[in-house]
Amino acid sequence: VINGERLWDSLMEMAKIGPGVAGGNNRQTLTDEDGEGRALFQSWCEAAGCSMGLDQMGNMFARREGTDPEALPVYVGSHLDTQPTGGKYDGVLGVLGGLEILRSLNDLNIKTKHPIVVTNFTNEEGTRYAPAMLSSGVFAGIHTQDWAYEREDAEGKTFGDELSRIGWRGDEEVGARKMHAFFELHIEQGPILEADGKDIGVVTHGQGLSWTQVTITGKDAHTGSTPMPMRRNAGLAMARVLEAVDEIAWSHAPHAVGAAGHIDVFPNSRNVIPGKVVFTVDFRSPELEVIEDMELRLREDAQDIADAMGVQIEFEKVGGFDPVAFDEGCVTAVRNAAERLGYSHTDLISGAGHDACWINRVAPTAMVMCPCVDGLSHNEAEDISPEWAAAGANVLFHAVVETAEI
Amino acid sequence: VINGERLWDSLMEMAKIGPGVAGGNNRQTLTDEDGEGRALFQSWCEAAGCSMGLDQMGNMFARREGTDPEALPVYVGSHLDTQPTGGKYDGVLGVLGGLEILRSLNDLNIKTKHPIVVTNFTNEEGTRYAPAMLSSGVFAGIHTQDWAYEREDAEGKTFGDELSRIGWRGDEEVGARKMHAFFELHIEQGPILEADGKDIGVVTHGQGLSWTQVTITGKDAHTGSTPMPMRRNAGLAMARVLEAVDEIAWSHAPHAVGAAGHIDVFPNSRNVIPGKVVFTVDFRSPELEVIEDMELRLREDAQDIADAMGVQIEFEKVGGFDPVAFDEGCVTAVRNAAERLGYSHTDLISGAGHDACWINRVAPTAMVMCPCVDGLSHNEAEDISPEWAAAGANVLFHAVVETAEI
Ligand SMILES: NC(=O)NCCC(=O)O
Ligand SMILES: NC(=O)NCCC(=O)O
Repeated sequence: VINGERLWDSLMEMAKIGPGVAGGNNRQTLTDEDGEGRALFQSWCEAAGCSMGLDQMGNMFARREGTDPEALPVYVGSHLDTQPTGGKYDGVLGVLGGLEILRSLNDLNIKTKHPIVVTNFTNEEGTRYAPAMLSSGVFAGIHTQDWAYEREDAEGKTFGDELSRIGWRGDEEVGARKMHAFFELHIEQGPILEADGKDIGVVTHGQGLSWTQVTITGKDAHTGSTPMPMRRNAGLAMARVLEAVDEIAWSHAPHAVGAAGHIDVFPNSRNVIPGKVVFTVDFRSPELEVIEDMELRLREDAQDIADAMGVQIEFEKVGGFDPVAFDEGCVTAVRNAAERLGYSHTDLISGAGHDACWINRVAPTAMVMCPCVDGLSHNEAEDISPEWAAAGANVLFHAVVETAEI
Repeated sequence: VINGERLWDSLMEMAKIGPGVAGGNNRQTLTDEDGEGRALFQSWCEAAGCSMGLDQMGNMFARREGTDPEALPVYVGSHLDTQPTGGKYDGVLGVLGGLEILRSLNDLNIKTKHPIVVTNFTNEEGTRYAPAMLSSGVFAGIHTQDWAYEREDAEGKTFGDELSRIGWRGDEEVGARKMHAFFELHIEQGPILEADGKDIGVVTHGQGLSWTQVTITGKDAHTGSTPMPMRRNAGLAMARVLEAVDEIAWSHAPHAVGAAGHIDVFPNSRNVIPGKVVFTVDFRSPELEVIEDMELRLREDAQDIADAMGVQIEFEKVGGFDPVAFDEGCVTAVRNAAERLGYSHTDLISGAGHDACWINRVAPTAMVMCPCVDGLSHNEAEDISPEWAAAGANVLFHAVVETAEI
């Protein structure tokens, strides 16, 4: 088994970089703090005897050699970037859990046939640069690298420029590596495992996602002297669209969710009727038809709202992936590991998107999940226990070592 | 009569400072651009032979002496600050129209019994620092200076610090000046004069205003993995409150208006259910009871919405003034001037707030309005014709000179 205390200490050490305002983290992608987190991870990997690869998207690959020079590596990992008000475990557990596997293999003096590579994928969260899972997406051939480099943050800084600025733009061609398999450990970010009292989630599927950026253009005007019938209030139109988003998601309950987390209002002045709003609608479902239906209804309902109010509306799909079915062999390896170790477990559909969802397109992939308190994530109060973390890392360890063969 | 061409040239010259992105201006209060605009105004006043007074709120007072050393000055003016996406005339016409009166009196070699003072009041717009008309409010004894100094902008910079930083914090005690009368020329910012084909609005009343800042606190959570029934979506609660604001205003139509121009969403990330939103509701009516009813219903309806959704809600009144009836003598002076000059005119209720609304508390006050294209203001496309500007300034000239006595 792995060393749970060392894993926990490393999690706490990483959490010191980019502290949040309420006990969590703000270590957004391609910030100086992201750079510091990467450097710490690299120093730990080197201390564990690994070589570090870095590709042109800033994806990091810490390699522990195997005994068979011909064997493709087994990959394991997740992401070190966080939300602006994120937790200490989302993503980080998967990267440092991978590192803990290597450290434990060293401790136990175990050699595997296949090399094992621990990865940190760049910009999984998608807050600063949409879409989420950008760099695993480029790795899997979903997006081109040029397109990814041109993504802009809210201040107009591009992904490519910021990646260079923090000094983590590598030379390696993205996606050139071939994987024997990929495993990702992650906190559930939802309430099921805790409610069911299970130690481990065996992730068989991931639900799909659709991000639609909506731009409504009305007319800036004085809030005092503009008569009600003359107004073209883009903020009010947005309010009606947000209500429609909620209705559309509920109409598919419990097989869908929907909300808008990102909302910008212009010019954002107390006495100016909003002339423009930009917001992003997030719809998810394990069923592709449901996602497609929600996207369509959003465009129809929002267009009706806009037409009735005399405002302009535009839609742009800024992110999305179809529901995922993970590899049966890898899923079985995870389930068997949990069983062998005596952990209670249940099959799960991941509610969130993960790098594993894209890597599954190019390699046999599965995920291990551990519970989190109150199912809360994307919140600084996100919490797990050291025991949950250790259980997840143990299952990861066994599934990976079985796949990498001793 | 005044020199319309000179007035227009000065308007265009001032508009070069703090240009906007779409032909208007962004010369927000206490920015470097505000300082530049002040310096230009001061240089023009000095060239016209005036002395400049500056009080501790940064209010500027350009004085042309009268013949009677005992006589209180007649004041005239408005503000030079603009909205972030504001027009070239809102406020500026009233200040430069005042300056044009002094220049014309010089040209015509007219001496008045009462001195005439042209004022520029600091932070009329209220965008960077709520409330609007902050410094005329301190002048009129509505707010204390200490309280005004503590107001913070979105970045936490205080009014007092920023006033010092731009170098326009004077020594003069605020409100120590006594006024014989106050006149303010302003564009209508609404559609009535243009629609009625009138040259001049004789402003008899101003409608009242109420700004309520609403803070809704839900819970940041993952948009993908948080089941719909577990969500406490502050953004959705805001959407419902915005709909209520619209209904409340319409229920009093045509005697009321309502909207929210300022909306901030936290953490504002595409895949985080908003845990907090802060927005400001702007209600206006010429009738005090209507404003009070709207404020009350907002608090009741929004509280019901919040309770039903399991989110917290707080209300803070961040600005407001009661409906205003201007001084009959001053209003008559304006109406007589328009009549004498042969301009078509109509009595008006101002839809917007103005420095005149506060000064009316401490001196006999009235306002002159000229039309603006499509009633559009608080928009970079705000527009007036040189003829409209000249007509307004001529009426101001005659009303002021009649009051200041030759
Ligand atoms: N795991 C996670 O929070 N990923 C971010 C992408 C998403 O929104 O699902
Ligand atoms: N005139 C003007 O736009 N003043 C700003 C204060 C208000 O919102 O009415």
